[in-house]
Amino acid sequence: MVCSGCSSSSATARLLPMSHQHVVLRRFLLGPLYWRPPFCSFPRTFKTLAVHSSASPSPVLAALIAPEASAKVIDGKSVAKQIRDEINTEVSRMKDTIGVVPGLAVILVGDRKDSATYVRNKKKSCELAGINSYEVRLPEDSTEQELLKFISDFNDDPSVHGILVQLPLPSHMNEQNILNAVCIEKDVDGFHPLNIGRLAMRGREPTFVPCTPKGCIELLHRYGISIKGKRAVVIGRSNIVGMPAALLLQREDATVSIVHSRTKNPEEFTRQADIIISAVGQPNMVRGSWIKPGAVIIDVGINPVEDPKSPRGYRLVGDVCYEEASKVASAITPVPGGVGPMTIAMLLSNTLISAKRMHNFQ
Amino acid sequence: MVCSGCSSSSATARLLPMSHQHVVLRRFLLGPLYWRPPFCSFPRTFKTLAVHSSASPSPVLAALIAPEASAKVIDGKSVAKQIRDEINTEVSRMKDTIGVVPGLAVILVGDRKDSATYVRNKKKSCELAGINSYEVRLPEDSTEQELLKFISDFNDDPSVHGILVQLPLPSHMNEQNILNAVCIEKDVDGFHPLNIGRLAMRGREPTFVPCTPKGCIELLHRYGISIKGKRAVVIGRSNIVGMPAALLLQREDATVSIVHSRTKNPEEFTRQADIIISAVGQPNMVRGSWIKPGAVIIDVGINPVEDPKSPRGYRLVGDVCYEEASKVASAITPVPGGVGPMTIAMLLSNTLISAKRMHNFQ
Repeated sequence: MVCSGCSSSSATARLLPMSHQHVVLRRFLLGPLYWRPPFCSFPRTFKTLAVHSSASPSPVLAALIAPEASAKVIDGKSVAKQIRDEINTEVSRMKDTIGVVPGLAVILVGDRKDSATYVRNKKKSCELAGINSYEVRLPEDSTEQELLKFISDFNDDPSVHGILVQLPLPSHMNEQNILNAVCIEKDVDGFHPLNIGRLAMRGREPTFVPCTPKGCIELLHRYGISIKGKRAVVIGRSNIVGMPAALLLQREDATVSIVHSRTKNPEEFTRQADIIISAVGQPNMVRGSWIKPGAVIIDVGINPVEDPKSPRGYRLVGDVCYEEASKVASAITPVPGGVGPMTIAMLLSNTLISAKRMHNFQ
Repeated sequence: MVCSGCSSSSATARLLPMSHQHVVLRRFLLGPLYWRPPFCSFPRTFKTLAVHSSASPSPVLAALIAPEASAKVIDGKSVAKQIRDEINTEVSRMKDTIGVVPGLAVILVGDRKDSATYVRNKKKSCELAGINSYEVRLPEDSTEQELLKFISDFNDDPSVHGILVQLPLPSHMNEQNILNAVCIEKDVDGFHPLNIGRLAMRGREPTFVPCTPKGCIELLHRYGISIKGKRAVVIGRSNIVGMPAALLLQREDATVSIVHSRTKNPEEFTRQADIIISAVGQPNMVRGSWIKPGAVIIDVGINPVEDPKSPRGYRLVGDVCYEEASKVASAITPVPGGVGPMTIAMLLSNTLISAKRMHNFQ
């Protein structure tokens, strides 16, 4: 029997012996308090098991395997399209009124395939939103000075309102020096420490909100999910997602806990959360048993796991075991199609904000 | 009967009718789960009650009122003195080696008595530590331009290594503009957003750590209290204490939750905490029942409450009901004499760090 769901020890698809199936059944009968599923897709596992078993399920068991309540899917792809359309309308109005088109410069150093794909997607999204894009590709062995020269030119170029240096940079470059060279008025990624400081401080406003966490909050807003007074848990404390996401949730009056690699029993925190934002890069780490019934799940993780059935040999899964979580949560983002498309939409949004600010256009 | 402990509704001392005392006794007998004390100093209340009662306490009750385990007192006054002595030694070494004495400039605008006291204390502490202090007092009706001129002069003055503008400023001044004018290399208060951004980001180092939260962490270090992997709860999210304290705890690998005025049931968070830092300005808000046995309590609050027995008519209490908390916690800072003296010690420490950095003195 091949189970395509989550595994507790690994995220790859697995072939399971029959003896294991009985363990699953036994644990299921013990009830949710005692049951720590080895699979994400439990009901499917159980149905497969029932086919192999000669006994019909008891009435109690039949009730237990009745279709479960399923979480609302937070459709990031659709929201991102909607935002892109809104940006397009604003870009047209700006062009018609003051003759200015927002411009985004993207700099790519080296030949990483994944980076090239991200840059291509950003360029395509700019086109769809009516934003001008300027692309620079530098060879892997470029010097910091060469890269800094391009950044300096874009800093001075009035047709460029946002500058993005695609990360990661080659190892011989100092990422901190490079990112600090982008002037804060064009730092549409929002990674500058001055920007992060303003985000952290009450009574201050960041120049730009970092794109991925901004996308997470935008999804909550667009789905009418209130944040104020809620318990929120952010999993992961990275500079680009976890930490700024926690700061944003706190700005909206959530009570925020940040769990990370040094947290003992992270599930004790997540089980108390009304809102979970996970950005940890561990496939299917957050199980159904980690989630409070009715919680809202924003899954930032995009993790490739082996999948022989896929033409590419792998598929993408989130940090959260979707099949389990969607039976417990009230709303959840899928992977892919959740937070991913929102990141680029927020990059376009920040570029538009920058252009409007520079030209004092309301 | 006058109770000098904490009150659940107010922090002022109160005169209690006898009927109320019986309620206290009854609640006590019901056990801790059902008992929400109206007083902080319960055993003292009980003893007073026993004097009024003709009955002797039962053996069970006698056992219950036996001396309780008392938390270790985290003596900020003594640690601050020790740090000041260490700084004094370093200042002498610096003077003897390169002929430079660290200098701190303090600017006070207006006639607020409390601010004048703080400035006087800072000046005195500088003297004790061997640091030069420069004081400017401006009248209440000074203009922003006049104040900015002094800041600019101190920014350019090589004998000044730290600049502190005493807050609050008169209402006609823009605090943000003023604080931003202090060059980041001399911002020994550590309030600049660039500094806060660096504090928030992994892999970055702040130029200075804000004094009060730095003092809190220093107390934990000096008392050998480990932070890594611990659950920490910070009460309050101010720019000068709560938020940077949370960032510091997280940098030391605690799992941090920040509770604030919008948090429902803050006691549910504090009861799970190994370390509590309270900086909320609510006298005796944190009760004994809010605290996990063995937790460590750092109380930043310094709140005046009415006290007719005091010559000044008031006394200072923390955010934490000390008498209750000291029976539950493993260690606790008193108020006064806990975090307060540490703030000035850390200001001196930051001034020394600044002077060493500017003169490249190890």
